[in-house]
Amino acid sequence: MLNVSIIGGSGYTGLELLRILLNHPFVSIKRVTSRQFAGKQACDIFPSLPDETLFFENPSIEDIARDSELVFTCVPHKAAMEIVPQFYEKGLKVIDLSADFRLKIQNTYETWYGPHTAPSLLNQVVYGLTEIYREDIKTAKVIANPGCYPTSVLLPLIPLLKNKIISNENIIIDSKSGVSGAGRSLSLTSLYCEANESFMAYKVGEHRHTPEIEQELSIASEKEVIINFTPHLTPLTRGILSTIYCDLKIKNLDLSEFISDYYKESPFIRIRNNNILPNVSHVRGSNFCDISFKTDKRNGKLIIISCIDNLVKGASGQAVQNMNVMSGFDEKTALNIIPQYP
Amino acid sequence: MLNVSIIGGSGYTGLELLRILLNHPFVSIKRVTSRQFAGKQACDIFPSLPDETLFFENPSIEDIARDSELVFTCVPHKAAMEIVPQFYEKGLKVIDLSADFRLKIQNTYETWYGPHTAPSLLNQVVYGLTEIYREDIKTAKVIANPGCYPTSVLLPLIPLLKNKIISNENIIIDSKSGVSGAGRSLSLTSLYCEANESFMAYKVGEHRHTPEIEQELSIASEKEVIINFTPHLTPLTRGILSTIYCDLKIKNLDLSEFISDYYKESPFIRIRNNNILPNVSHVRGSNFCDISFKTDKRNGKLIIISCIDNLVKGASGQAVQNMNVMSGFDEKTALNIIPQYP
Amino acid sequence: MLNVSIIGGSGYTGLELLRILLNHPFVSIKRVTSRQFAGKQACDIFPSLPDETLFFENPSIEDIARDSELVFTCVPHKAAMEIVPQFYEKGLKVIDLSADFRLKIQNTYETWYGPHTAPSLLNQVVYGLTEIYREDIKTAKVIANPGCYPTSVLLPLIPLLKNKIISNENIIIDSKSGVSGAGRSLSLTSLYCEANESFMAYKVGEHRHTPEIEQELSIASEKEVIINFTPHLTPLTRGILSTIYCDLKIKNLDLSEFISDYYKESPFIRIRNNNILPNVSHVRGSNFCDISFKTDKRNGKLIIISCIDNLVKGASGQAVQNMNVMSGFDEKTALNIIPQYP
Amino acid sequence: MLNVSIIGGSGYTGLELLRILLNHPFVSIKRVTSRQFAGKQACDIFPSLPDETLFFENPSIEDIARDSELVFTCVPHKAAMEIVPQFYEKGLKVIDLSADFRLKIQNTYETWYGPHTAPSLLNQVVYGLTEIYREDIKTAKVIANPGCYPTSVLLPLIPLLKNKIISNENIIIDSKSGVSGAGRSLSLTSLYCEANESFMAYKVGEHRHTPEIEQELSIASEKEVIINFTPHLTPLTRGILSTIYCDLKIKNLDLSEFISDYYKESPFIRIRNNNILPNVSHVRGSNFCDISFKTDKRNGKLIIISCIDNLVKGASGQAVQNMNVMSGFDEKTALNIIPQYP
Repeated sequence: MLNVSIIGGSGYTGLELLRILLNHPFVSIKRVTSRQFAGKQACDIFPSLPDETLFFENPSIEDIARDSELVFTCVPHKAAMEIVPQFYEKGLKVIDLSADFRLKIQNTYETWYGPHTAPSLLNQVVYGLTEIYREDIKTAKVIANPGCYPTSVLLPLIPLLKNKIISNENIIIDSKSGVSGAGRSLSLTSLYCEANESFMAYKVGEHRHTPEIEQELSIASEKEVIINFTPHLTPLTRGILSTIYCDLKIKNLDLSEFISDYYKESPFIRIRNNNILPNVSHVRGSNFCDISFKTDKRNGKLIIISCIDNLVKGASGQAVQNMNVMSGFDEKTALNIIPQYP
Repeated sequence: MLNVSIIGGSGYTGLELLRILLNHPFVSIKRVTSRQFAGKQACDIFPSLPDETLFFENPSIEDIARDSELVFTCVPHKAAMEIVPQFYEKGLKVIDLSADFRLKIQNTYETWYGPHTAPSLLNQVVYGLTEIYREDIKTAKVIANPGCYPTSVLLPLIPLLKNKIISNENIIIDSKSGVSGAGRSLSLTSLYCEANESFMAYKVGEHRHTPEIEQELSIASEKEVIINFTPHLTPLTRGILSTIYCDLKIKNLDLSEFISDYYKESPFIRIRNNNILPNVSHVRGSNFCDISFKTDKRNGKLIIISCIDNLVKGASGQAVQNMNVMSGFDEKTALNIIPQYP
Repeated sequence: MLNVSIIGGSGYTGLELLRILLNHPFVSIKRVTSRQFAGKQACDIFPSLPDETLFFENPSIEDIARDSELVFTCVPHKAAMEIVPQFYEKGLKVIDLSADFRLKIQNTYETWYGPHTAPSLLNQVVYGLTEIYREDIKTAKVIANPGCYPTSVLLPLIPLLKNKIISNENIIIDSKSGVSGAGRSLSLTSLYCEANESFMAYKVGEHRHTPEIEQELSIASEKEVIINFTPHLTPLTRGILSTIYCDLKIKNLDLSEFISDYYKESPFIRIRNNNILPNVSHVRGSNFCDISFKTDKRNGKLIIISCIDNLVKGASGQAVQNMNVMSGFDEKTALNIIPQYP
Repeated sequence: MLNVSIIGGSGYTGLELLRILLNHPFVSIKRVTSRQFAGKQACDIFPSLPDETLFFENPSIEDIARDSELVFTCVPHKAAMEIVPQFYEKGLKVIDLSADFRLKIQNTYETWYGPHTAPSLLNQVVYGLTEIYREDIKTAKVIANPGCYPTSVLLPLIPLLKNKIISNENIIIDSKSGVSGAGRSLSLTSLYCEANESFMAYKVGEHRHTPEIEQELSIASEKEVIINFTPHLTPLTRGILSTIYCDLKIKNLDLSEFISDYYKESPFIRIRNNNILPNVSHVRGSNFCDISFKTDKRNGKLIIISCIDNLVKGASGQAVQNMNVMSGFDEKTALNIIPQYP
């Protein structure tokens, strides 16, 4: 059994880790930390949870390190950079769900997020987009688990850019997210009466997932890529759908076939033909990423549609997928969840 | 491996059976029938399904009987009474999700539903409320799987009536259901724009689940029980919550303790204290039934709140639970699904 | 022109008053106060508002009194009892939307809400259920605008109790409210991801609208009435639907006809026959209260269904209706809003 | 009083015309036709309607022509081309809400919709985008009321293209619509359980509003424009939001100021600064079109966001606006509806 702990377990990603890991046959959950709820039963805070033996705690780093081999850090950015190095130094494997270790260039991080206090760790970290970096993840000590928007965008784009199938210029990404992407903290825009029957764009051209997407697209295309990224808030709980517009360089290629082949060892990628376009409801609660390609015959633009459950493949599911790869478990362990429909 | 088939598999209960059974370690799905979609891949009709080897068929009863040991019949009432006897005669076990075999008295059935063409089978059938009739289910040949509203109502009420804790008069049941209770067929009231931002009562005092509830409450109290039952339609996809008002006969009893003890061998019953009232979101996608009791100190009324996922404990989950009991499997097999929250 | 001000205008009831009053031909809005947003344009805080000339202010009571003849106080209970007496003493008419002046007996108020600091005003106040107290409202100085749940419950029940048509015992009220009833303040249960796809009862037997309902039912029946009141939270923005169970004393009376006649001078009461049951979507955005009656033939119970838009007839609409009556305007002025459907 | 009739009044656009016109001081509704519901009271089919004197009828064209001066035709495309010419020949003014007369080139129509049986009328028709063609509308006999998506797209783009501020190449339009855009007819994708908690693109590069948008953009830019248009279905009842990506040709222009000036006589256009981005909830139930501009500093792309209520400015509201202009009424008559929020 792999002994794991969840640091900052009282948000939606913490709960989702619990939902998945409580059914994991090779994992033992040692500690779930929460400053706010320390001492309380997890199932009192999250009444969906059936397990009555689980309590939130507020232990020291030492206590956690003593009985855990791997930690999932689910704390906000800035807080993660304080604790991840401590776990790393104590020899624990870390899967960090915050943004703190996703950007490889300290400068880029600081432009978008402010000062970084643990830059020396940046080059130890593997970006945890499992399907792309699987080999590196196997031996990684610290994983920067990708952002939700980037996961939906990078999975279809990286294979195309790596193979020079599309231009690396003029890529436009129009993404739509459910409200759970904003987490469980109190804010006006997250209120039911504000988000219900509502639809809006936000942080147009300014969202912090922009440099993360650009970093990975630049690596794939071996050239600096500048994108347009516009996120939208849509009235549903779970799901991200990204509509991506780009220019084909190689025509007459069967893209569905190409990408199916590219991901043939990746059980969570499902390529859709044009009769069944991706829909967030088709992936709800699961680790799938559904992708489709459509070329607009009238002007040659390639339109890519991609969707995930932001809390699963966009966060906790991918984190467990990475843990499975790091630990030599079958990648699908505890993740063969059939989406709940309707 | 138990060989099972699903008859009428293209509705929401059929899909939900597939979601559960595809993860069942001791079951092999032989056939899934659908007149409408015969010949099509199940995952083309239900794109949430990952299994690409499953096809809808329209085989003869003989073909189904040849390779199946147990069938789930998910056809509408009236259609079920035509096919259930045929499977029964061929020696298959049947779990019928329609209303056709739930009422033991032919006359009562005909008052509410019209003519019954297979009345002779009625006394062979076991009412499949697992927690109450577990012993009978073990050896049953035909199960009448309970209705969704009755399941939510009977589980808390039967133990209280059996033990004369509440009066069998003046029981008022105010139930609220999500829209999936109406199935996947096209109707004006099921349209998004009609059901969204909408809340209404329907079939007040006339809903066909009334005699089903009354039959079981009468058995429990050994006296004829007449209830008031008012169902409501609420804008959510899954879930039923019933608020039940009744008169306590025995006071000063700790009802939570009593019922916890009554159901101590029933893993899907969760008794809630008053800090965490039942909420359909706490059981979503799972086979749990959450129950709480509250006595109104000002007038002595007992208010019972009970909720289930109508597609799981209210239909396909309970059907699998019954199959597990009939087949000697652990009752929780394939049903240890942690509710998906949020 | 009647000069009015809105005290505490930055919540949903304040916004709804603005939506209605900006179209009122005989009203001039002098001031809209908000501590939080003083100095800001109202249309920056509420971008739905087209009026660009309206600013939030934080003026003194004296300033408000100088240029206003009538104030709507939309502050929380406890805060209202501080300011309503000051406006009253300065000769302004007051329509108070809080709970502070709804209960006539100081003791009852204090049992449910805590200390009351302005009990001497209680006997000056008229309870603003327009259809019932229209004559008193015409000359009232201070109106206690009814709570949203009580409005939906009292309008159908008072005529029946006054005329001894139903028993005053064993009245059970099962109410369902949209999320806007909780206002615009930040709380976990008001978050989109918590309220969406969710349905629960809350404050069972303990809701503060209980004594308000009982006070008015007791007056109508000239006898103390004790009710059972169970509110529920339903995933929609606007609307309350109450299902009321009671015992008929006079049978063979056409209740729809009786009540249509009772309310024949009340343009906002719509009596529904049983083909079209009340639905919150039929009254959305309007001041209507839709009511239907159904007798359960099997056991003689009377089931009353009643619904309103909680922000209109349940709050700001009824406040304007009261202002119209107090000011000699046609009761429907600015309130002839056709419900927005779908 | 202007005598008007509504042809095909039992869908959502018919209902919305009734909601608006019943409050119009200068209009008398003579007939509302519906084959399906002829003989029924409108308020029995649409219980939101308070007017009890209105009945659906199925009169002859002659009967309608005898007592109406203007008709709104709300029938499906193909049906409209049969009846519009008949009303035109009888001297009635027609505002057609179908697609049949929007495309000026018969050939284009037939490519996207199939045979046109009344091509000779095409050059008599004025495209009813009020803000752009107001002068022509004043004297028009037949108005082709614009599609919902085109309205949201054309209002921001036409002024920019006319003034060569943006390039007419590489325009990408990513639109999101609520479910009411699909009307009130029964279809699987319009079911609550299918549309709720769902988000998908549809008809990618194939939607029939594409040629309508291109026609008007081509006229504005005096050059053929080919666009990319991807519509999406979002789980809300009302509203369309379009996110438009294009290339600036003239930089350093204050676009908000430019467009505010361009539309200074158009009361329904609201230009938003970047603190308050357009949101469908800010225009719900109203005839407003909210627009904002954002230049992505990192790559110079212009991102335009525009939103409307698809049933009002995208259909029935704009139809009434056109009627007002054709009839010499103030353009805002019956349309000064403040959006209902929340």
